[in-house]
Amino acid sequence: MALIVQKYGGTSVGSIDRIRNVAARIKAERDKGHQVVAVISAMGGVTDKLIGMAREITEDPMERELDVLLSSGEQQSIALLAIALNSLGVDAVSATGRQAGIVTSGSHTRGRIERIDASLLKRYLAEDRTVVVAGFQGITEEGMIHTLGRGGSDLSAIAVASAIDADLCQILTDVDGVYTADPRVVDKARKLPEISYDELLELASVGTKVMQSRSVEFAKKYGVKFEVKSSLNQNPGTIVTEEHEAMESVVIRGVSIERSQARVTITGIPDRPGMSGRILGALAKAEVNIDMIVSNIANDKLARHSFTMHTSDLGRAQSALKPVLSVLGSEAKIETEGGIAKLSCVGIGMRSHSGVAAQMFAALGEANINIGMISTSEIKISVTVEEGQIEEAARVVHTAFGLDTSD
Amino acid sequence: MALIVQKYGGTSVGSIDRIRNVAARIKAERDKGHQVVAVISAMGGVTDKLIGMAREITEDPMERELDVLLSSGEQQSIALLAIALNSLGVDAVSATGRQAGIVTSGSHTRGRIERIDASLLKRYLAEDRTVVVAGFQGITEEGMIHTLGRGGSDLSAIAVASAIDADLCQILTDVDGVYTADPRVVDKARKLPEISYDELLELASVGTKVMQSRSVEFAKKYGVKFEVKSSLNQNPGTIVTEEHEAMESVVIRGVSIERSQARVTITGIPDRPGMSGRILGALAKAEVNIDMIVSNIANDKLARHSFTMHTSDLGRAQSALKPVLSVLGSEAKIETEGGIAKLSCVGIGMRSHSGVAAQMFAALGEANINIGMISTSEIKISVTVEEGQIEEAARVVHTAFGLDTSD
Repeated sequence: MALIVQKYGGTSVGSIDRIRNVAARIKAERDKGHQVVAVISAMGGVTDKLIGMAREITEDPMERELDVLLSSGEQQSIALLAIALNSLGVDAVSATGRQAGIVTSGSHTRGRIERIDASLLKRYLAEDRTVVVAGFQGITEEGMIHTLGRGGSDLSAIAVASAIDADLCQILTDVDGVYTADPRVVDKARKLPEISYDELLELASVGTKVMQSRSVEFAKKYGVKFEVKSSLNQNPGTIVTEEHEAMESVVIRGVSIERSQARVTITGIPDRPGMSGRILGALAKAEVNIDMIVSNIANDKLARHSFTMHTSDLGRAQSALKPVLSVLGSEAKIETEGGIAKLSCVGIGMRSHSGVAAQMFAALGEANINIGMISTSEIKISVTVEEGQIEEAARVVHTAFGLDTSD
Repeated sequence: MALIVQKYGGTSVGSIDRIRNVAARIKAERDKGHQVVAVISAMGGVTDKLIGMAREITEDPMERELDVLLSSGEQQSIALLAIALNSLGVDAVSATGRQAGIVTSGSHTRGRIERIDASLLKRYLAEDRTVVVAGFQGITEEGMIHTLGRGGSDLSAIAVASAIDADLCQILTDVDGVYTADPRVVDKARKLPEISYDELLELASVGTKVMQSRSVEFAKKYGVKFEVKSSLNQNPGTIVTEEHEAMESVVIRGVSIERSQARVTITGIPDRPGMSGRILGALAKAEVNIDMIVSNIANDKLARHSFTMHTSDLGRAQSALKPVLSVLGSEAKIETEGGIAKLSCVGIGMRSHSGVAAQMFAALGEANINIGMISTSEIKISVTVEEGQIEEAARVVHTAFGLDTSD
C-alpha cells in the first residue's frame, strides 16, 4: 500500500463529467489498496471568469481581495470532487488551503509556501480517508488568504507530498510526460522514463512548458520525487528525481526550441567600467526580459553586446536603449534582428563528456544551418538560428545525439 | 459618529452593478462620518447554481461538502464588494465567516452561531476601515466550515452587531419595512415606525415573511435593536426592539393572513388518555406541519380534534390518519375541508386590553364573514375564514382596530 499525492489541473476538473472521471481514477487507486491525497485546481475557466468580474468593477482590483475571490474557485472544485468520490463509495473529505495547513508568506496573488502543518491531513489519512486538497492557495500566519500565482497547484502538490512523506507524487496533466523534444516538431521524439530536476529546469526555462520552474525547484530542495503523466490515459509518465550516476551515461537528455526571438546588438561601446550595467539597467527598467547575453571586444577596443529577447519586447527595448546610446558616445550604434529562434540541448551528461558543443555544431553545419549567437551553461548549450530553420535544426540535433525513437 | 452594521441580501448584490450601488450606499454612510460593517449574502442565483452542480453529481450530496461549496458564494461577493468600495476610495477589507470569528455548532447546512470572536473585526474598526463580512457562514471550533441555513445572513448580521456592540443594525431588503398588513391586500396598510420582537415573531410565523424567526429570536435574546428597511431607497424603515410601555397603548400592531389552508377534523374519538398523542404522532411522522389545533368534547362524550395545515399537506395527512382511525374505534371519522384561510391579529397591547377578540369577531360579523376555528395566544388571535373572504376580512379588521392610514 502506497501513499500517493495526485495533482489534477483545471482542465482535468473542468466539468462535472471530468470531475466524475477524476473521481473514478482516484477510486481505482483506492481499489488497488493505495491511499490518495488529491490536490486540485479550480475548474477550468472559473479563475478567468472571477478575474473578469473583478475587472468589471475596476481595472486594478486590490490583490488582497483578488486572493479572497480566486481562492473560492478551488473551494468549489474540492467540494464537488469530494461529493463525486463519496457518490462512488469512497470516503473522501475536502480540505481548503487553510485546513490543509498550507502556510504562506510573501505578497498577495503570489504567495510563497513557508511550511505545511499537515496535522489534519495526517489525521484524515490515519482514518484511511481520501483527502481532496485545494491547490493554489494557503493562508498566512495571521489567517489571511493567499494564492500562489501561476503553477501554484503543482507547488501545493509537491509541498503536500513532502509534508506527508508521500511515496509518490503524480502531476497529472494534458501531456504524457517529458519528451526528448516537442513531438509536434520532432516526430521521432521519445518520452523519457526519467529526468533530473536540473535538466527539467533547463528544459522548462527554454520553452518546454511542462511545469513552472519554482515547483521543480521546490521539489529539488525538498527531494520530492514526482511523476509527470497524463490525466487522460494510464500510460507511465516521466519520473523527475535527483540525478544519479546512471543518468550521466546519456549526454543529452533533450532538445528544446524557443521561437519568435529577436536580437539586439549594440556596437561601439567604449571599453570602460559601468557601460554594461547602464545598458542592462535601462532594459530592466523597461521590463524587457533578456535571455541570452553575448559580449566581446572588437579589434578597435570597442565592445559589442548582443541580447536576445522575445520579439514582443523588441520595441520596448529599442525605446529604452535610445537615451543610453548618447551616453555611450558617438561610436555607439544599435542593430536589431528579428525572425530568429533558439535551440537548446540539455543534459547533465555534458559535465562528464567533452566535445558536445562540437558535435552539435557539426550536425547543424552538415545541414547547412547557420549558427548565430551561442551561449552555454554547465548542462546546456543554446544557439540561435534563423526561425525558418529551427524545426530542421531540432530534428538534426535530436538525431545526432541518438535521441530518436527506434520505431 | 455611529458604528452601523448593514446586511444586504443576495438580490441587493445580485450583479456587478448592484454591488456598485451597495458600495455607493456604504460610502454615503462613511461620508456622514459613520463606521460600517457590511454583512452580505452570495450574489443572487449563485447558491442555487452551486447546489445544482452538486446535484448533477448525486441526488444526495454530503452536507459537509455542500457547506464547503456554498460558502464559496459569499467569499466571492465579499471580495467583489470590497473591491468596489476601494475603487470608490473607501478603505475596505473583506472577512470570511472564519476571519470574522463566527463560531458555530450544530449540523452542517444548518449551523448555529455559538459565539463571535470579533478580535479581527475590532482591529479593522480601530484602524477605521470598513469591513465586509460573509454572512450565512461560520466555522466550528475544529475549523470545519458551516453554513447557517435559510435566513442565515440576517442571523450573521445580528450576531456581528451584538459582538461589536454596534449602535445600529440595518437589515436592508426588498421591502420598505414592516407594515400593519400586506399592502397588496390592505391598501390602507401603514408602515410601522417600530415593533417589538414578539410581535414580529408572531407576524412572521403567520406568513409575513420579513425575516426568519430565529434571527428575531437571536436579536431578542441578545437585545440587538435592528431596523428593517429598503435597499432601494433611503426611506426610514421599521425599528425592531424590546417592548416598552408606550407600545402597549396600541392594541393591535398588525394583521396578517395565510392562504391555502385546509382543516382536518376527526370526530368520534373515545375520551381516553393517549388518543391525541397517537393522532399527532402519526401526523408528525408523516411530516405534516400542523398549525392550529382545536379540540373539545361533544355531548356524546366523544372528543373531536381539528387541525389546520397547508393544503399541500392534506393528502399526506389523510394517508397518515387512515391506519389510526381503526385504532380509535368504529365511531371515529375524518372530515376534511379545503379552501380556507387564516387571519391573525397581533399586538402586545392585548395583554392589557380586554375585549379584543369580541371587537374582532364583531367586525367580521358585520361584514357577514363566517368564522371557522379560533385560536389565541397571549398576543395573537387567529381565526379561519373561507379563502374567498380572507382579503375582505383583513381589511375589515384592519379598519376596526384603527390601523388604516389617514391618507
